[in-house]
Amino acid sequence: MAIEIERKFLVVGEAWRRGATVKPIEQGYLFSSPMVSARIRLVDGTATLTLKGERAGLARDEFEYAIPIADARDLMRLSQHPPIVKLRHEVVYAGKLWEVDEFTGRHAGLVIAEIELDHADEVFERPSWLGQEVTHDRRYRNSALIASGIPGEQAA
Amino acid sequence: MAIEIERKFLVVGEAWRRGATVKPIEQGYLFSSPMVSARIRLVDGTATLTLKGERAGLARDEFEYAIPIADARDLMRLSQHPPIVKLRHEVVYAGKLWEVDEFTGRHAGLVIAEIELDHADEVFERPSWLGQEVTHDRRYRNSALIASGIPGEQAA
Repeated sequence: MAIEIERKFLVVGEAWRRGATVKPIEQGYLFSSPMVSARIRLVDGTATLTLKGERAGLARDEFEYAIPIADARDLMRLSQHPPIVKLRHEVVYAGKLWEVDEFTGRHAGLVIAEIELDHADEVFERPSWLGQEVTHDRRYRNSALIASGIPGEQAA
Repeated sequence: MAIEIERKFLVVGEAWRRGATVKPIEQGYLFSSPMVSARIRLVDGTATLTLKGERAGLARDEFEYAIPIADARDLMRLSQHPPIVKLRHEVVYAGKLWEVDEFTGRHAGLVIAEIELDHADEVFERPSWLGQEVTHDRRYRNSALIASGIPGEQAA
């Protein structure tokens, strides 16, 4: 088990694209509740199953297992909603790694940056393209986004 | 992925105990819905995570992964309900393997026998200790039992 401490922000403009590396990610949720979620993810020709549990504050328990790709495809079909497809850009700023997720499909237009921290009150430099913080806004969790469109937008 | 086809029966009397081998099983559910469940199981010093999806009739999709025992312990704590503890007896009758689960703790008194079939209409010999069939009674699923006492009994 790992404990995940991260902060999440909306992204402004395009300056973050410079020097970023990119890979496509496809992910679905077998199950998601306020207490626990089970994520199926396909990236770089590998598949993982990740269980996340709720914790106080910024931290969540995270359990990740490699699974066969064929299983991941079958499990995606057991999911309630069609998968999220996004491009993950990795951007290094002031010595820290930012993961900038550019959503596609029904979430096109949404861009979210995440930074993983060693402890909850760690100080880090903010790039100019960082917008509003959404760490505590559950609507921006992938497990919530998959069931809805972009928060604040009217569903089609 | 495996497809599981099984039939389940209540058990009458004690005759099934003769010649049975036994091992204790501890299991919890990280989540459970009519469509999908995630089971954590500890047996014989090993731990597994099993995802089961709903299918038509007797069959269910089943995905099973070995996980570290420490993870299983942590995941049990993320479960909504305390684990089920039962003794699994393996009984061979007329060339077929029966798994007879004798529940303990808050389910003490409940004994359920299961047989795994190759196809849904497979014919098998019925031992004399077989009681009412409960294959299609969702209350006897372990994922349902964990949230309740024995079906038909008043909760304490």
